Amino acid sequence: MATQAAIAWEANKPLSIEDVQVAPPQAGEVRIQILFTALCHTDAYTWSGKDPEGLFPCILGHEAAGIVESVGKGVTEVKPGDHVIPCYQAECRECKFCKSGKTNLCGKVRAATGVGVMMTDRKSRFSVNGTPIYHFMGTSTFSQYTVVHDVSVAKIDLNAPLEKVCLLGCGVPTGLGAVWNTAKVEPGSIVAVFGLGTVGLAVAEGAKSAGASRIIGVDIDSNKFDIVERAFPSVFLLTSDKDVCLADNVSAKNFGVTEFVNPKDHDKPIQQVIVDLTDGGVDYSFECIGNVSVMRAALECCHKGWGTSVIVGVAASGQEISTRPFQLVTGRVWKGTAFGGFKSRSQVPWLVEKYMKKEIKVDEYITHNLTLAEINKAFDLMHERGCLRCVLKMHT
Amino acid sequence: MATQAAIAWEANKPLSIEDVQVAPPQAGEVRIQILFTALCHTDAYTWSGKDPEGLFPCILGHEAAGIVESVGKGVTEVKPGDHVIPCYQAECRECKFCKSGKTNLCGKVRAATGVGVMMTDRKSRFSVNGTPIYHFMGTSTFSQYTVVHDVSVAKIDLNAPLEKVCLLGCGVPTGLGAVWNTAKVEPGSIVAVFGLGTVGLAVAEGAKSAGASRIIGVDIDSNKFDIVERAFPSVFLLTSDKDVCLADNVSAKNFGVTEFVNPKDHDKPIQQVIVDLTDGGVDYSFECIGNVSVMRAALECCHKGWGTSVIVGVAASGQEISTRPFQLVTGRVWKGTAFGGFKSRSQVPWLVEKYMKKEIKVDEYITHNLTLAEINKAFDLMHERGCLRCVLKMHT
Repeated sequence: MATQAAIAWEANKPLSIEDVQVAPPQAGEVRIQILFTALCHTDAYTWSGKDPEGLFPCILGHEAAGIVESVGKGVTEVKPGDHVIPCYQAECRECKFCKSGKTNLCGKVRAATGVGVMMTDRKSRFSVNGTPIYHFMGTSTFSQYTVVHDVSVAKIDLNAPLEKVCLLGCGVPTGLGAVWNTAKVEPGSIVAVFGLGTVGLAVAEGAKSAGASRIIGVDIDSNKFDIVERAFPSVFLLTSDKDVCLADNVSAKNFGVTEFVNPKDHDKPIQQVIVDLTDGGVDYSFECIGNVSVMRAALECCHKGWGTSVIVGVAASGQEISTRPFQLVTGRVWKGTAFGGFKSRSQVPWLVEKYMKKEIKVDEYITHNLTLAEINKAFDLMHERGCLRCVLKMHT
Repeated sequence: MATQAAIAWEANKPLSIEDVQVAPPQAGEVRIQILFTALCHTDAYTWSGKDPEGLFPCILGHEAAGIVESVGKGVTEVKPGDHVIPCYQAECRECKFCKSGKTNLCGKVRAATGVGVMMTDRKSRFSVNGTPIYHFMGTSTFSQYTVVHDVSVAKIDLNAPLEKVCLLGCGVPTGLGAVWNTAKVEPGSIVAVFGLGTVGLAVAEGAKSAGASRIIGVDIDSNKFDIVERAFPSVFLLTSDKDVCLADNVSAKNFGVTEFVNPKDHDKPIQQVIVDLTDGGVDYSFECIGNVSVMRAALECCHKGWGTSVIVGVAASGQEISTRPFQLVTGRVWKGTAFGGFKSRSQVPWLVEKYMKKEIKVDEYITHNLTLAEINKAFDLMHERGCLRCVLKMHT
C-alpha cells in the first residue's frame, strides 16, 4: 500500500512528507489508518538525536487514534473498521510481567520494538523506494497507515471522537496513572507537581480527582506563569485553516493546581521552599520534566516518614539521579512510572469511557490543530508559549 | 548518683571507665539501671569521629536492657522495678509522625537527643568531676545507670532474659522490620541480602519467616564465607572468664540464607550476576552495610516492574546514592528503613514476646560476652571473624 508519512531521515533535520510503502500486516499484526496523531516530547527527544537508541531513517509518533484497515493471521481481538488507539506499551496478558499483577510493563514485543522492527521477521513494514524505514516505539503514528503488533492495539468506543481521544495514547494517561496507580494518592494529601506541561497538568487533574487538599504546581517557565496569573489566559491556538485564534479555557488552575511556586523567585533550594510551605514536606511529588536535578528536589521536598516521589519525566540518556541515602532511611520512597502504570489494551478503552462520561479532561490539553503537512511547524510549537498538545489531522 | 560508665572523651581514643555522676530523672524522664548492653556499628561509627554530628565527651551505647531505678514527675507508664529496653527511636503517640499511622519516626524528643541533651532543660544528666558528658542517641547505655525520656522506654516481660533481649534494642528488629514492615515481603518472593552481619542475618530470618522462596546472601568478607561453606562453622566465642570457646551453631544458613554470592568471585557487576541468577532480578533486596555503591547494586539487581530495594545500612556522612532514573521509571522502588519501621514502645515488647515463644531468634546473634571493663576489647572484636554481637555485663 502506498501512503504518506513524515520521514525522519536523520537526526535534527526537518521531517519530510513522502510516499511510503506500507506492507500488509503479517501474523499477529494490525494495519491501522491513523486519523489523528499528537506530538509528544519523546518524539522530539529521539528526533533531536540525543536518544542513543534512536534509529534513522524512521517514522516517529506514538500518541494517536485510527481505524483498523486489515489484520494479519491469528489476530482475533480487532477487525477492520474497529476504532483503536495504538499503544507503545504492549499488553500480551501472557508474559511474566503481564501475569505478575504488579506491573504494566509487558515484555512480549519489546525486543523488536526497541530496535524499530516487527517481531515476526525482525523487519520493518515501511519502505521508501525500497529503503526500509524503521518503526518507532512500536507505533509510528506519523504515517497515514501504520503496522503494529496486535498486543499493542486498544479497541475503543466507536462513538469516541478520534481527534480528541488520540491523546489517551500517552501523556494524559501517564499523568493520571502516576497518581492513581503508582502513587495511589489518598484524599487530603498534599501534592507537588514539577513541570506544568500536559503530563504535569494530568497529574494535577488526577490528584484533584483523588481528593488531594493542596496541589502545588512548580515550574520555572514564566510562560506557564503567565497562564497561571491570569486566571483564564489567552492562549494562541493555531489551526490549519485559521492561523490564530484564542482559547480562553487553558489554565493550570482548571486542572486542579491550587498554588504555584517558581524556583526562580526564591534564593533557597526549591525543596526547602516547599518543605517550609507545607510544614515538613508534601505527601506526594511528581517530576514531569525529565530533569535529574528536579527529580532530586522532588524527592527531597517530600515529608519525612512517608513522602513518596514519582519520576514521570524521561531523562536524557546517561544522566543519573542522586541523593543522600538518609532521605530514604528516614522514610521517603522513590518510584517511577511508565504510561502511568496503566495496562494499555485493558485500560485505555476504560479511559476513553471516562472521557465520554466527562470524568476526565482531554479537550483542554489540545491547544493546537494542524495537518500532517505542517508537522515541522508542530515540532516548533512544542517550545512555544501556551502549547500543550498539537493534534495533526492525517488525511485532508 | 555515682556510678561507672565508659566515657568517649574524644574520637577514636579508647573509652575510659570512670566514675560518673548521674543526675535524678526530671519530669518525663526515667533513670534505668543498665544490666546488659551490646555494641553496634553505629556506636563504632560515632566513636571513630567520622560522624559529623558526634559530640564529645559522650557516653555511647544504644542496644541494651535494664531495670527502672526511678522516674521523674509525670511518668506514668513505667515505675521502679519494671524491666525495660531503652529505645533510640522514641514513640510519643502524640506528634504528627506518631499520629500519621505511616511511620515510626516520632519527632517528640529528636531536637534534644540529636544534640546529646535532655529535652526539659537542654542539659545532660551525666557529669565527671563537674564536666558535663553528652548523651548519645537518647540512650547512652554504656553506663551502669542512664537517664532517658519516658517516650523512649519499652516496658517488657519481667521473665525475659535481659542478657539476651537487650539485642531487641536495635539490630535484630531493624532487620526483621525491614522485611515485615518496610518491604512487606510476600510468600514465594526472591530476596537478596547485601551484608551478612547481625542486621543482614535478621533480614534473612525475617524473609524466611515471611515465606521467601530464595534468600541470596551477598558478602565480600571471606570470613563470612568461611562460616557459610562449612555448614556449621566453628566460631570463636570470647567470654570474660573463659577466653576462647567454640560455638557450633552460627551459620548464615541457620538464619534462612539459601544461596551465597561473593562479588569477588565474578567479573560482572554483582547486580548483573544476581539478575542472571534469578531470571530478571529479585523481588526484594536489602542493603545492610551502609555502602552507597552496594546500595546502587541492591537497587539494580531488582526485577524490572516491581522489584523493591530497602536501604537498611547507614552510610557515612556526605555520601550519596545514585542510579539512572530509568531504573525507577521501569518499576523498581527505592526505600529505606530506620529501626525496621517498628513503633518502639508498642512493638519492642511484642518482639520480646515473640522471642519468649521462640518465634524469633536472639541468642544466635550473641557470639561474645564480656564485661563493661572490657569494652575496648569488644570494639576490637567487631571487626573480627565470627563476631555478630558482643554483650557486655554491666555490673560484676
